[in-house]
Amino acid sequence: MIKNSFFYDIEINDSDVDEIFHNIKEEYSSKKVGYYHLVEQDLSSVKEYAKECEWVKKIVIVGIGGSSLGTKAIDMLLRQTRNVTKEIYFLESVGPNALKAVLSNISFEDTLFIVISKSGTTIETISNFKYILKRFGVDLKEDNKHFCIVTEEDSNLDKFAKKMNLKRFFIPKNVGGRFSVFSSVGLLPLAILGYKVDDFLLGAKTLSERFFSFKYDNLIKKSLFLAKNSKKYPINVLFSYSSTFKGFNEWYVQLWGESLGKIDKRGNRVGLTPVGLVGSIDQHSFLQLLTEGPLDKTVTFIKVNDFKNDVKIPKMSLPFLESTDYVNGYSFNELINSQCDATMESVIKNGINVDLIEIDDFSEKNIGYLIFYYELLTSLTAICLNIDAYNQPGVEEGKIILREKFKI
Amino acid sequence: MIKNSFFYDIEINDSDVDEIFHNIKEEYSSKKVGYYHLVEQDLSSVKEYAKECEWVKKIVIVGIGGSSLGTKAIDMLLRQTRNVTKEIYFLESVGPNALKAVLSNISFEDTLFIVISKSGTTIETISNFKYILKRFGVDLKEDNKHFCIVTEEDSNLDKFAKKMNLKRFFIPKNVGGRFSVFSSVGLLPLAILGYKVDDFLLGAKTLSERFFSFKYDNLIKKSLFLAKNSKKYPINVLFSYSSTFKGFNEWYVQLWGESLGKIDKRGNRVGLTPVGLVGSIDQHSFLQLLTEGPLDKTVTFIKVNDFKNDVKIPKMSLPFLESTDYVNGYSFNELINSQCDATMESVIKNGINVDLIEIDDFSEKNIGYLIFYYELLTSLTAICLNIDAYNQPGVEEGKIILREKFKI
Repeated sequence: MIKNSFFYDIEINDSDVDEIFHNIKEEYSSKKVGYYHLVEQDLSSVKEYAKECEWVKKIVIVGIGGSSLGTKAIDMLLRQTRNVTKEIYFLESVGPNALKAVLSNISFEDTLFIVISKSGTTIETISNFKYILKRFGVDLKEDNKHFCIVTEEDSNLDKFAKKMNLKRFFIPKNVGGRFSVFSSVGLLPLAILGYKVDDFLLGAKTLSERFFSFKYDNLIKKSLFLAKNSKKYPINVLFSYSSTFKGFNEWYVQLWGESLGKIDKRGNRVGLTPVGLVGSIDQHSFLQLLTEGPLDKTVTFIKVNDFKNDVKIPKMSLPFLESTDYVNGYSFNELINSQCDATMESVIKNGINVDLIEIDDFSEKNIGYLIFYYELLTSLTAICLNIDAYNQPGVEEGKIILREKFKI
Repeated sequence: MIKNSFFYDIEINDSDVDEIFHNIKEEYSSKKVGYYHLVEQDLSSVKEYAKECEWVKKIVIVGIGGSSLGTKAIDMLLRQTRNVTKEIYFLESVGPNALKAVLSNISFEDTLFIVISKSGTTIETISNFKYILKRFGVDLKEDNKHFCIVTEEDSNLDKFAKKMNLKRFFIPKNVGGRFSVFSSVGLLPLAILGYKVDDFLLGAKTLSERFFSFKYDNLIKKSLFLAKNSKKYPINVLFSYSSTFKGFNEWYVQLWGESLGKIDKRGNRVGLTPVGLVGSIDQHSFLQLLTEGPLDKTVTFIKVNDFKNDVKIPKMSLPFLESTDYVNGYSFNELINSQCDATMESVIKNGINVDLIEIDDFSEKNIGYLIFYYELLTSLTAICLNIDAYNQPGVEEGKIILREKFKI
């Protein structure tokens, strides 16, 4: 269902592989890192609530970063291949124009607002939430079915929600925001939209078992290669062939950048810079830099074998434009995948280390596998780099300075 | 109206500045590079055609790369602050799902398709164009008011359009795709949408005169700094504070990456890697990598002083959430700009070279200035790096391989 092929030699000692495998198994068993165990969760309350939400026509996610990126990524990937009738909007930042634009699209009566914040006091999220309350003149006691809260148990947001009698779902304490898409953070809105949420977990579980029980060592080798060469190839490009991967690329950029940009145990600044590209669009943009610019990048191509969509390029010859007829009669699916293959060949020829992830089709199971693949790769690479993948100390200072600015 | 401040020392010799200024003035006068002179163009035919397009409710741009990114960038920046009633869609890539989704949003009767390709034979563009012709059963002789062609004069697409009696606009031969937003490529759709196209040129002209007549040397110093430190700081981050800058960031990534990733005159692979971020969203994503990861990046912040939108955070204190009340009563405009300032301070404290571009407001004139600022900076940096900013030899190989794949 998902195949990963490498077009470069990874020379890795078996003993290194064993060491990394040992370390990640310890992390897995310690229960300090919770996302590994989301595949085992009971989804009945999520699915029950989703059923109760038949009245909902529009969902507004009030959340930023890990609270929005995963849901957006998956919905963008799958929506066009499904019969999804409910719309979803994201209120992330506090740009006043975007705020106005989103809210002008909805009417309160058929809208569910899902307010998501792990800490419970994210300034953007609570400010937007307050604005919604005022804008629609909400009386939370009467209107409480329009709100649902996803947060850590006992956070201040949870206490507020409990007092106001709002529906609550929890993010496990040991699951970080950027690893939380398969907690209620992602699965709740995705269930309401009608996606098969069990299948996401099934896909993730398939890889989890393959890895932890059968030591699928491709992933360990890849992470060791990326970590060992982090100075030679500090930039990791994800080149996804379909514009519906835009949200997935953004999710990847957060996961990779925020987990792997750290001061290591020896006090050195380390990290790998993620770049997300979309094919074939970025063949007309970033590709030139890949093929002729500095050799400081690795590239992973993602290709979907079967889009389940047989729209074809018409067998039509237009006067003076006959030179484009060589693709006539082929499907757009074939064209975009051939573009992926051709670009990949040319990038490899230019001396760049390339690997390819092939996905059979856009099933929930495959997406679950793909998401878990990147989460696991991130954890492994952090172990190889000797850093903590799960904290983000470097963003605290800005928050303190912000607070100072508003002190009278 | 636009102010650029530097938070690092640029130690540059006056003689280096003079040399670069001399070189770019030669380029300007040689007329080999045409985008400098777009500010002098006569827009009467564009504006006249825009007037004729009152019947249009939806515009579909059929074009990729330089044919779509600039228009998308500007429309995304300005739409929410204007009374724009016409919708615009972009058919860029050949992903079959996106194609279906875009076309399901439109009805042929009130739609204008603008087909844009400088070369005239871009495979994605012509394939999508053929699909549109078939999908709507178009008879070009009857339906020709629904199509408009933008291409180089005498290209095969131009010859086709002439034969079919379609409306044609031209991209000057000496204006490259990624520098073409102020040719008909961008100004035609933007005029139809109702933007003040003269003002874009006025803004660009303001900077052009400031630079070429009065040698505004900030730009030269910045480009010399970036080029001289291209190995130390190979990554240039643009951190724009408002999600409406998303399209602008993509335009910047193409312009910077495709112009500056080149083999130089000595045969070395050189280039600077562009990364586009949006605040405050990416404070919850990429920021950690900036503050604690390797010191291989420069960062330019973009801030809009006045969003002309006074939506405020309500003076509302929610039980248990009082710790977020410090922003109560302030405008969202103030909050996002304070976030920009706070993040910038924290990034500077972490030893990163930062500069700031402040824009008064979202006027067409300011956007024109900003676009031309980046075009000029790109040209200058290419001169400093000893490379040709205007070609893209590295993307040809993939096109040849693609063609081979379809040979029977």
